[in-house]
Amino acid sequence: MSIQLELFIHPMCPFAQRVLYVMAYKGIQCQIKEIDLVKKPDWFLEVNPKGLMPALKVTTSNRVCLLHDSIVISEYFESFPGPYLYPRLTNDVVDSLEKAVLDIIMSTSIDALKRQIGQIYYNATPNDRELGYFRRTIAVVEDLIPDGKYFGFKALGKDEITLIDLLALPLIERIVAFKDLGLPYYQGVNLQNILSWYSRIRQLPCVKAYEMPLIRYVNLRKYMQSNKYEGLSLPASNYDSPPKI
Amino acid sequence: MSIQLELFIHPMCPFAQRVLYVMAYKGIQCQIKEIDLVKKPDWFLEVNPKGLMPALKVTTSNRVCLLHDSIVISEYFESFPGPYLYPRLTNDVVDSLEKAVLDIIMSTSIDALKRQIGQIYYNATPNDRELGYFRRTIAVVEDLIPDGKYFGFKALGKDEITLIDLLALPLIERIVAFKDLGLPYYQGVNLQNILSWYSRIRQLPCVKAYEMPLIRYVNLRKYMQSNKYEGLSLPASNYDSPPKI
Repeated sequence: MSIQLELFIHPMCPFAQRVLYVMAYKGIQCQIKEIDLVKKPDWFLEVNPKGLMPALKVTTSNRVCLLHDSIVISEYFESFPGPYLYPRLTNDVVDSLEKAVLDIIMSTSIDALKRQIGQIYYNATPNDRELGYFRRTIAVVEDLIPDGKYFGFKALGKDEITLIDLLALPLIERIVAFKDLGLPYYQGVNLQNILSWYSRIRQLPCVKAYEMPLIRYVNLRKYMQSNKYEGLSLPASNYDSPPKI
Repeated sequence: MSIQLELFIHPMCPFAQRVLYVMAYKGIQCQIKEIDLVKKPDWFLEVNPKGLMPALKVTTSNRVCLLHDSIVISEYFESFPGPYLYPRLTNDVVDSLEKAVLDIIMSTSIDALKRQIGQIYYNATPNDRELGYFRRTIAVVEDLIPDGKYFGFKALGKDEITLIDLLALPLIERIVAFKDLGLPYYQGVNLQNILSWYSRIRQLPCVKAYEMPLIRYVNLRKYMQSNKYEGLSLPASNYDSPPKI
């Protein structure tokens, strides 16, 4: 069956980045369409009336489906031929028990990390509760990836990349980007395992293909803190410099 | 491979109920252990230090895994032999595109319904925003299931039961249980399709096996509103009567 894939992204949206990394890891061919989120083009809203991003338009011989949600699209991509991101049984069927274990890591630790990124982006003056929650979240992640092992290592006993690593990556890129900014969140926080994991995973060709310079996240944060942020605009090089004051 | 399954539930927890319905639909044999959530037994906290419920302990020949989260456990159950709850391709492999479409219904409409149930249980005096959100959520669900069709009908063009129907059921049981209480949420709300769907799905043997009398949800709500609620206690028949004032 022939399938045509159109992927709608902004190259600096963390949820779009998840999907780009998974797409590249699996070797999937998509027509990539970059969306300016400040001025969403009419054609995008015609394709996707909800305006949600990332989105994937799938056209097969007998139907058209529009998917959104980075996890749903990533799981769909994982079902394609190519290197596996969920553990498999000997007959190449997904190991549903190991997938369930990974899904729990996703819905607990990685989701907690996602909320922390939100805090760091939007909150210039975190209170003690918020600081404590950030530090506990980082400690949980540090514990999951000793010496930079992959995320499934502790639970599955195998140091092999899984979907969780690629879904966590855009979040960890931001954690790393902000680490030298003197933010109160980071005081007394150990990032040793996260940094080992990060330097390892960014050697992957799929990551090299789509990673952004970390300085862009720092500058994007400055736009948000200065109230000069309207949404992610194109091109991504807009964020090579901080906002002019 | 021999697998031993122990399922930890309270029979009136909506998330445990999801898993019970899926288990029964698939014909899966579990050792069911009911947990008193007011006095969590020490043995449960030893098995599951996080104390999360529902939980599933999976013991295979070479490992023990503890799963929680109603969706993760339900998806794991769906991978077992038995009648399918995700659409399949001709070779019995899950149709990953149709699964993705269902997953989006889950993460949008069904999740919205979950939040609304929370509102109705806990909030005696909803404001206009909360009332509006409830009514819009119900309207979205009504639109998904015309004349009581199953939840995948509009998106997939097939009136066949899927995992989404069983995951939605505990939420809809409560929507139906509360409909005659004169709650402001329900004023001007049309439940026609939901009621058709409900009367249809409760004919299934898996539902008959585990459904509770609706009056128990009404009484449970009275416990919550009267501040006499400490958590779900055993036996479930505790909720056959309202709290004594």
